[in-house]
Parts: sequence; structure tokens; C-alpha cells
Amino acid sequence: MFSNLKLNDNEAIYIQIKDHISSMIDKGLIPNNSKLPSTRELSQLLNVSRNSVVLAYEELKSEGIIYSISGKGTFAKSKKNLPDSIWNINWDCLENDYSKTANKMDIVKNEIPWRKDLISFKSISPNGELFDIEELKKSFLNRLSIEGHKILNYGYAQGYKPLIDYLLKYMNAKGVDTANKDILITNGFTEGLDLLLSSFIKKGDYIICENPTHNTAIKIFKSLGLNIIGIDINNNGLDFDMLEENLNNLKDKKIKFAYITPSYHNPTGIVMSPENRYKFYNIMKKHNIAIIEDGFNEELLYSSSHIFPIASLDNGSNGVIYIGSFSKILFPGLRIGWILCDKQVISKLESVKRCKNIHVSFLDQGILYDYLSNGGFEKYVKKIRKFYGDKFTFAYECVNKYIPNEYVLGDGGLHIFIKLKNIDSRSLLLKCHENGVIFMPGDIFYVNNSHNDTIRLGFSRLTFEEIESGIKTIGNIIKEIAK
Amino acid sequence: MFSNLKLNDNEAIYIQIKDHISSMIDKGLIPNNSKLPSTRELSQLLNVSRNSVVLAYEELKSEGIIYSISGKGTFAKSKKNLPDSIWNINWDCLENDYSKTANKMDIVKNEIPWRKDLISFKSISPNGELFDIEELKKSFLNRLSIEGHKILNYGYAQGYKPLIDYLLKYMNAKGVDTANKDILITNGFTEGLDLLLSSFIKKGDYIICENPTHNTAIKIFKSLGLNIIGIDINNNGLDFDMLEENLNNLKDKKIKFAYITPSYHNPTGIVMSPENRYKFYNIMKKHNIAIIEDGFNEELLYSSSHIFPIASLDNGSNGVIYIGSFSKILFPGLRIGWILCDKQVISKLESVKRCKNIHVSFLDQGILYDYLSNGGFEKYVKKIRKFYGDKFTFAYECVNKYIPNEYVLGDGGLHIFIKLKNIDSRSLLLKCHENGVIFMPGDIFYVNNSHNDTIRLGFSRLTFEEIESGIKTIGNIIKEIAK
Repeated sequence: MFSNLKLNDNEAIYIQIKDHISSMIDKGLIPNNSKLPSTRELSQLLNVSRNSVVLAYEELKSEGIIYSISGKGTFAKSKKNLPDSIWNINWDCLENDYSKTANKMDIVKNEIPWRKDLISFKSISPNGELFDIEELKKSFLNRLSIEGHKILNYGYAQGYKPLIDYLLKYMNAKGVDTANKDILITNGFTEGLDLLLSSFIKKGDYIICENPTHNTAIKIFKSLGLNIIGIDINNNGLDFDMLEENLNNLKDKKIKFAYITPSYHNPTGIVMSPENRYKFYNIMKKHNIAIIEDGFNEELLYSSSHIFPIASLDNGSNGVIYIGSFSKILFPGLRIGWILCDKQVISKLESVKRCKNIHVSFLDQGILYDYLSNGGFEKYVKKIRKFYGDKFTFAYECVNKYIPNEYVLGDGGLHIFIKLKNIDSRSLLLKCHENGVIFMPGDIFYVNNSHNDTIRLGFSRLTFEEIESGIKTIGNIIKEIAK
Repeated sequence: MFSNLKLNDNEAIYIQIKDHISSMIDKGLIPNNSKLPSTRELSQLLNVSRNSVVLAYEELKSEGIIYSISGKGTFAKSKKNLPDSIWNINWDCLENDYSKTANKMDIVKNEIPWRKDLISFKSISPNGELFDIEELKKSFLNRLSIEGHKILNYGYAQGYKPLIDYLLKYMNAKGVDTANKDILITNGFTEGLDLLLSSFIKKGDYIICENPTHNTAIKIFKSLGLNIIGIDINNNGLDFDMLEENLNNLKDKKIKFAYITPSYHNPTGIVMSPENRYKFYNIMKKHNIAIIEDGFNEELLYSSSHIFPIASLDNGSNGVIYIGSFSKILFPGLRIGWILCDKQVISKLESVKRCKNIHVSFLDQGILYDYLSNGGFEKYVKKIRKFYGDKFTFAYECVNKYIPNEYVLGDGGLHIFIKLKNIDSRSLLLKCHENGVIFMPGDIFYVNNSHNDTIRLGFSRLTFEEIESGIKTIGNIIKEIAK
């Protein structure tokens, strides 16, 4: 901008500088209100005395072409404030179906927002007060001292090697033989699912999932144009008859994946028994439909610890893609999850990851690795199991005491799922909202938005008093409606 | 797994526990080598005396059904080591075109890898030794103390508000009127480009770009099935005649975007003049083709500071999508970039971001915000401008001294681009590799992999001695080949 100013000997330097800047502003090449170099910077740049620049700026100021703000700098005041005509692209017309669906199904945009004065049962995110901030600080300082230059620079798409190795061992201890498997670090569960599906599905493919299931998964499936086969979950768990029936009816269709959340299933909170995990695995194996296992909150298993993931039944085979995450209960703000599956699949996903966002923050991976390997996670899990376990038991009791229901589901976790007796959850929500209580209507977890008579209550961030008071309110309003 | 064990009064407790575990292992429900609960945990879980569990474990051990490793725990030893049959999915057959292209074009998999003993001109990533680790530590501790519980928990898809506000002001100072604009925080430039294209393009759409251009951009375009219209860049800069000609020939095609890197263009290093920025903007406006401006290394402008981004010409309009990044020169390990454009577009992209990976690490955003707002970046940029500026000048001189060439391009930045005289860069690379020097062959930056006679030399991580010695080696080998 200034380096193309060639100074001559015929005219005073400050005049040449003044004319150059004036002409640039005039042509619109220095936009209105944009910052000019300081007089010191410009004198260095042009290799002239600072006085010449000061003089030029003074002249420009007196002519109203530039102005100064004390402590902030000097700015252009262009008459070319706006271009001759406005360029107005109609972005709505350019938007594709993927974005349209992702926007339409964005619950943040469509559901009642959280407010401080509400008792909110909407969230299932962890209580930040339980985080070991001091431990994390230690891990940060430790990791940065050991290899700060390294983890602050570009890393590998697959992830930070020590973290990958830690997670391989972690999965080993869950009974998973990792001999033919590998791990890719992802930005949480959501990216894991998106990466996998973007790499292996075609629009129109079929996918099996529990119904209800994780609403983000439904959103991703629909945005990518998948046909969803929902298999009912009710108070008896997964409906295996319905599963077999669908598999028979859809024999000629390309069913690529079956997505399943065996532990603390979202939204029902059901933990699938070992026998049913075995059964499910074998049915999928028979039909050659790869399983996506969502390791969702597996670490929270309060009363039924040591149930092995479906991935542990796949030892030596390559039919299960396990997606784990530390960003559900540990530090959601860090967004760290992982995919464990067949080595060759990981290699493919690694290139896709590199194509989408290069890699997950190496700083975060380094800190998390340090925290995990120093036993921070084990300590934390012990603490939160008790904390959330007590809350779960209390909330469960309150629900049974105050809310008339068909049935209540939940084996633990951070939420409870309720089927009401002929009560529309949307009208209930509106009335509850007026009375200072909100929750998640169950329909958002159903593949066809059905089951308007269900609700999910998350209690992780509420006190015992709030839990009781909120559930009482919901119960009272239901009784009023039922009258 | 253990909670479904119902103990009776007819048999000794330890026998019942033993039989239960034995049968679970037998059925394959406890996988081989998986860890069992400790005796203390299990006694609590079942509400029995610890002695009973110890006794059960002893019996199981003596029968070879479980085993202990001192200090590690107790593990199952299942004969069901492997399932009855291997389930082998052919993942190659399931992979879609997107993944295939992303894999085929992954230079990490296809180019000669970096090795410690090589002088490598491949990389254009910053020199980690220049990072202000101490400043970053302060920012981390500061931010964590102020709002640790908050930034470690779930955040917003659009990004961390203080960082967004900082960047809006930062763009203001570059002459961009942000009145009708907004910002989305992304995992670096790459995610910014991927998010935008995934939301607005359809397979088969056309996109204009400079030729050569950033190889990752070409990879993303091709993976998404775009038709690329490359416009030549040579020693005169962008070929505007070729641009106009293409626009006339493709009048009936849907050209959605024009992707352009006006500052330190990768790989040529050319900085586009203000006049040409103006010209380019107006041509695109006339044809109603939205501009994607890559703010790549704009902050490095050594000798020609204060050239305003094309986005500053778009004030009041909505035709330019600006993608900026701090992950190119500041802390690439953190992966933080941003998209600045029309508010409505940002709102759409926000939902798409939430659909892909929820949000960028709030910890990283918090730290970066603290670092930026305390003036860390300004200090750092001053330091690196001098550091890389000196290296650039030196490398440029060496190239002209040692390497016979058609022309050398580069106005600064972290790399130099060379058009050789009838020398095949691939054979040159092989010979250089034998002599301990590697570089980036230019063909990977061309949309049709042409121009086998070009090379890019990145020097950011090399010493002056290495730069001279490496360039000398390349020059000597070229002279040998030319003989």
C-alpha cells in the first residue's frame, strides 16, 4: 500500500506522502475508519524522517481527510463511505439441504432457552463445580514445560500419540482387544459420528437406531439424507422382535450401520444387559451391518459397573465402531472424543479429518493426557459417581412420588425418562414454563417426532431442593391438566 | 453385570459369586483379559463381606478362570478368546467418493516425510521457539481463575463471546464495517472453508480459484465434487484476461464462489495490490459470485503493511466471506480461526457447526482471548515480522544466487515460489532427497497437477546456514541435471 510510493526529488517529501494517502483514500483503497500506520511505522517503511510523516498527517487532518483518536491511532475519513451500489446476495437461495436440515433441527434455536431464574431439567451437562481445576492447572503447566513448543505447533490428524496410547490401554481394560484396531482423536462424540458417516454413507442409505435416541444423532442422520429405521425402546428395553421384522422387510435395502447407545441410553437412561449386547451383536453380524457403539457416559455406571462394551465382543473382527468421549462428563469445553475401530478405517478417517479441520487442539490433548495419566480421571469419576448417583436416586424417588406416569425409565446417568398418562408434553412445557420450570419434551428424541407424552429430566446441575421443587411443580400441573 | 446376581440363602455366598463370574466368562459376557472389579468394589456392589469375594476370586484363580497382576488388578481368562467366526466387513467397498478423494489427495500420505537429518523446505509452519510460552501460561492461569468452571463446560457453537467481540474490533481496524456482519469461531481455516462449502454448495457447482493455490483448498473442492476453474497466477500476478474469458464462457453455469488469497498467496507469496483487489471485487460483484477471501498470513505483511482486505470493500454489502486464522503463525496447535460475513450466513453456519462438532474448545478460545487482549499477539507479530522478514530476504537472495530459474515469486511470508527452466521438480526432489534436502513440488498446488517445473521453499523453521546450504544443494543438482 505504501511501498509502491516512489518518492522523487522535485517535491517536498511530506507533500508526496500527503498526496499519496489522499489519493488512496479517494480511490477507496483505504477504507473509511480504517487505521493508518503510526508516524513512526510509516517513516521506517518509507525510509524518510519522521517529521515528514508528522507534517503530512497534520495537513491531512486539517483538510478533514484523516482523524486521530487519542491513544488509539490515526484513521481514514473517506467520503467513499459506502460503495456505489449495495451487493446483496440472496444466501437463502444458495443454502443447500444439509444446512437447511441442520438449521431446522437445531434445538438451541427452537426450544425454550435456559434462564437463570428457571429450574431447568433440560441440560444433561455436568456440574462445573465438580471439575478439578487445580489438577488441570498442574497438568497444563506440566505439559507446557515438557513440550510446549511441540503441542502449540501443528500436530498429527490421528491425534496426540501419548493420548492415543493411553486410550488403547483404557479400552483394553474394558475387554477390547486392540490388536487389529486403532484410535482417532475427534472433537467430541459429535465429530466422531459426523466423520464416520461423511466417509461411508451415500444419500439414501439406511441406518438402524434405537427409537427414541440421541437427538443430535437423528439430526446428523437426517441432515446427511439417511433413511432411519427406528427400533422401539420401552420399559422392556429394545424391541428385538421389531428389529428382526425390519431386517426381514428391508432385506434388499442397503443398511449401512446400526447406531446404539448401550449404557445410560439417551434419553431413556436404560443400561442394556450383557446378554442383550451379545444378542444385538450377533444379529448385526449375521446381517453384516456395522455397529456404531456410542460409549455415552459409560463411565458413570453407578450400580452395574463392569458391563463390557459391545466392542469387546468384536475382538479379532472389524464390525464395531466404538465412539467414546470425555467431553460429556469430564470437561465438555475441551471437546475431546475418540473413535476406536479397524486400523484401516482409522487410516481413512485420518485423511478425512485432515480434510475437515487438520486435527484436534494438541494443547487440549496434551493437557488431558497429563490429567488422565496422573490418575485425575479416576479420582474425578469416583467423586461424581457418588454425587450424581445420590441425585439420581433422589430424583427417581421424587418422580415416582409426584408425577403420575405410565412408566419411568432410567438405570442411572444424569437423566430420567418419563412416559406420562395421556398428557401432551408440549402443552405441559408451556404451563411449566409459566411456573418457572422447564424440561426436554420427549418428541425431539423420536425419529418421527412422535411420543408427545414423554419427557426427559436432566438433574445434573440442580440442587436437591430444586429437584424436588421442580418435579413437584411438574406433577401438580399434570394433575391440573388431567382434571 | 453383577447387579443382576440375586443371592440366595441355600448356598455359600462365595460359591454363588464364583459360579456367577464363571458362567459370565463362559458365555463370553466377560471378555478375555478384561479387568474385574476389585474385591472391595465387588463386596460393596453386592453388599456382602469382602471375605466372600476374596474367597470366590481365590477359587476362580486356582481353576485358571481368572488371574491377577500385582498392582494392576484381576482379569478374566476366557477360553472364548475369539468369537466362533471372524466378522470381516470390507470397508473399502463401503467407503464413499468423498473419503476416497480426501485420502488420495492427502499429501501427508503421498509425499516424502520429514526426517530430522534432512534440510526440509516443505513446511511453512511457524518456528515454535518464537512462541511466548510464558505469556500463554499467564493467560491460561488468568482465564481459568476467572471463569474455569465456565470455559471447561459446554459453550456456544458461534464461539466464546469475548473472543468474537475482540475479532470484530480487530477486523474493524482493518477497515471492515461489521454493522451487518458477524463472526463464527472455527477449528482453523480448514474448518472454516469446509463449513461454508458444506452448507452452500451442491455437487457439480463451479468454483473459481487462483492457479496455483492452497493445496488443502483444492483437496476440499475436489472431495466435495466441485468443478474448479483455475485462473493463472504468474510473475504478473492474477491473469484478469483469463478470468474475464472464463466468466464469459461459463455464463450459463452456476459459479457459486471465487476463492482468493490476496496476501502472501500460497504458494506464490504474491501480495495483491489494492488496485487489483478493487478490480477483482468489482468483477465478482458484477457477476454475483460470492468471494471467499483467505486472510492467510495477512498479519505477516513485512514491507507493505496496511493493505486492506477485500472484505473492507464489501462494507454494507454481503458478497465477501472472510476466513481468518491464528493457527497459521501464532499457535497452530490450538486450531483457532474465524469466518466473518453476513449475519444471516453466520447464523446458518452456527447450526451447521453445532451439527458437526458442537463448538471449538472453549478453553483454547478463553486462553487465546486473554493472550490477545493483553497485547500478546502484537508483541509476537513485531518479533516474528523481523525474524521471518530477515529470513525471507536472505532466502530470496540465496535462491537468485544459486538456483537457475525462469522467475522467483514472493513478497514475503514464510515461503518462496520458483519456476525452474525445464527441470522436472519430481526428479529433482528425488535427487535432492538423496542429498539430504527436500521441498514441496509445485504441482500439488495446481488444480490439474500441472507445472512440474515449479517448487515451493518454506524456510520458517530453518537456520540461515541451513537455508544457504539447502538452496545451494538444490542449485547444484539442477545444474547437474541441466548438463
